Amino acid sequence: MYNEKMYKLGSKRSVIRELFEYGKKRAAEMGKDSVFDYSLGNPNVPAPKEINEAIIELLNELDSIEVHGYTSAPGNLSTRQIISKNIKDRFNCDIPANNIYITSGAAAALTITLNALSTNESDFITFAPFFPEYKVFTGAARARLKVVPFNENTFMPDLDAFEKVIGPKTKGVIINSPNNPSGVVYDEETIKKIVDIIKRANERFETNIAIISDEPYRELVYDNTFVPYLPNYYDNTIVCYSYSKSLSLPGERIGYIAVSPKLHMADAIVLAVAGAGRSLGYVCASSLFQRVIEKCIDVQVDINAYKKNRDLIYNSLTKIGYHCIKPQGAFYLFVKSLEEDATAFSDKAKTLGLLIVPGDDFGAPGFVRLAYCVSYDMIGRSIEAFQKLYEMYQQ
Amino acid sequence: MYNEKMYKLGSKRSVIRELFEYGKKRAAEMGKDSVFDYSLGNPNVPAPKEINEAIIELLNELDSIEVHGYTSAPGNLSTRQIISKNIKDRFNCDIPANNIYITSGAAAALTITLNALSTNESDFITFAPFFPEYKVFTGAARARLKVVPFNENTFMPDLDAFEKVIGPKTKGVIINSPNNPSGVVYDEETIKKIVDIIKRANERFETNIAIISDEPYRELVYDNTFVPYLPNYYDNTIVCYSYSKSLSLPGERIGYIAVSPKLHMADAIVLAVAGAGRSLGYVCASSLFQRVIEKCIDVQVDINAYKKNRDLIYNSLTKIGYHCIKPQGAFYLFVKSLEEDATAFSDKAKTLGLLIVPGDDFGAPGFVRLAYCVSYDMIGRSIEAFQKLYEMYQQ
Repeated sequence: MYNEKMYKLGSKRSVIRELFEYGKKRAAEMGKDSVFDYSLGNPNVPAPKEINEAIIELLNELDSIEVHGYTSAPGNLSTRQIISKNIKDRFNCDIPANNIYITSGAAAALTITLNALSTNESDFITFAPFFPEYKVFTGAARARLKVVPFNENTFMPDLDAFEKVIGPKTKGVIINSPNNPSGVVYDEETIKKIVDIIKRANERFETNIAIISDEPYRELVYDNTFVPYLPNYYDNTIVCYSYSKSLSLPGERIGYIAVSPKLHMADAIVLAVAGAGRSLGYVCASSLFQRVIEKCIDVQVDINAYKKNRDLIYNSLTKIGYHCIKPQGAFYLFVKSLEEDATAFSDKAKTLGLLIVPGDDFGAPGFVRLAYCVSYDMIGRSIEAFQKLYEMYQQ
Repeated sequence: MYNEKMYKLGSKRSVIRELFEYGKKRAAEMGKDSVFDYSLGNPNVPAPKEINEAIIELLNELDSIEVHGYTSAPGNLSTRQIISKNIKDRFNCDIPANNIYITSGAAAALTITLNALSTNESDFITFAPFFPEYKVFTGAARARLKVVPFNENTFMPDLDAFEKVIGPKTKGVIINSPNNPSGVVYDEETIKKIVDIIKRANERFETNIAIISDEPYRELVYDNTFVPYLPNYYDNTIVCYSYSKSLSLPGERIGYIAVSPKLHMADAIVLAVAGAGRSLGYVCASSLFQRVIEKCIDVQVDINAYKKNRDLIYNSLTKIGYHCIKPQGAFYLFVKSLEEDATAFSDKAKTLGLLIVPGDDFGAPGFVRLAYCVSYDMIGRSIEAFQKLYEMYQQ
């Protein structure tokens, strides 16, 4: 009587969810301080004070229909104009307001984009390690996800493998940098090489492969790391953006799709995006939060709080002896498991109260992900447990 | 390079949109007062003052992560518990919090429900006149929409025709009462007859057909009209609800799916709903507005404002000589066109500044829809134009 695939998607308890439940149980039994929860990518840094100030201003300034009424499906024109100007100011890239479609966060941006592009027998390619929902979203768009392996020393994509995976059915390449789960930022050279491979494939297969740049972590970078803006490197680019992390508003679901006007058949794709949004039941993104973005386009969370966390967790773990790459962005640390089976490693960590996610679902078996968007204090208190865990493997 | 179906959905300018553009042009040329826009179902009554008060309280009382952070996918447990209690108090119906899944409005509730239920070769049935997006949403769920005709005098479904349309592939029946576009409320007798036909079909075809009760207009009823609560009449019922109209928050996208625990395989369907939400990219409904609903569950818009509008437009048009049924709910008046072709009629009305929507897309050619969620003043000023329009057909 129901759809089996949807049932499986809804009933398969994710590893993260299992960890979360374990943590709750352990906290109830042994106290909150016995749990060091690194499982969830849920920002712990508060939204900047300007957000709530903007909300209160909007409620005072505008009438109810203006604040809470329907907007057009792609969003308020004024909000899209401000986003367009922001892109121009920051990246010197022209993406007109008409090519911007405001969405209920990055997940909606991705599902809408994939549904807009996907035809029969479409392949999308992404680079491991990758956000596991890509598999769900491509599947729902009746497409297949192909995964390119990575170099275990640099966490950069294996470009020779990419060249072999890309083919005549490739519709798009999903790039996620700063990366969840590795925290790596793809440098300009890597981006240029990826683009060259795609361009060669376009010629070889007479296609116009799209790059889908999934950028929820764009603003969360450290040490002045440069994050290339992909529409400046490749014409057929669609950017999927979210304010969830840059403004710590993950529950409010606000982001956008930006379709490069240089994309092959851009105008038709803008319409296909609108059609896909409509067919998936997205009427408009929150009217109030569209206006909040308009007022707070230049505001950012306190990135330094994440940087402090990164430095503490990275320095402490490498000092103990763990192997990991220093993340340049996002709020994840990707650590080599101390045994081949990362799930067994995560299970052992659990006995010490450490909740860390095995990398298998991210396309990276043998690694674990630590989300360090947690309190600095918790990180400090957890180091002893990481020390004990390390020692368990030295015997 | 893109999906043709999505392109068509995005590029087909709706009749309503055309009217809207015409209205803008006319207002620019001849002044705002020359346009009487009855085209959009966009509530004009402000949200109750309690909504903005609740928002400000929440911003003051809770920390940023509690207000703006992720909630679980089905929504805050506390919000779902309050919705569950509200259903129990009002309808004496037990729908536990676990069977409630908070959505980004009714459109999301419908698309998620249809995707959760739809299998290969599924049919969904609805009764004309009907909300045109049902066709889009069922199509996107890979199902077909079959439409049952209506009695032109009562706007009630033709139940003999329903009995013939229902079949072994029928997965669900979408009921929308109070109805968009007719404003009619299905009385208890009609509901009981519909349920009997479905039960007979279940026996005949050994199926468990679901009723999907699409209820965005439940609270907008006049003259103490009774709106039967469908889970009390039929076990296999899923309610799709929205606060867009009852609280005038259409731009904030907040509503829910309530799966009757008596539904065949209810637990599996609750999981399929979660899976469908996930695959369509719905992470959670707005965290802030979930908490607003929690605080304002018993609050309602000023329904009397809509009732005053209904009385003025209905009394004025019938006095002129138009044929229409007195709507008992929603904010629409469905009027018989003065010529067979409702589009030609709407075009003629346009020349007088009257923007009214032909019924063809609602499955009711020969009728026009007037959305009277407009200012009382505008209705008063428009009557002369309706008089002129009527006279154009008397020559």
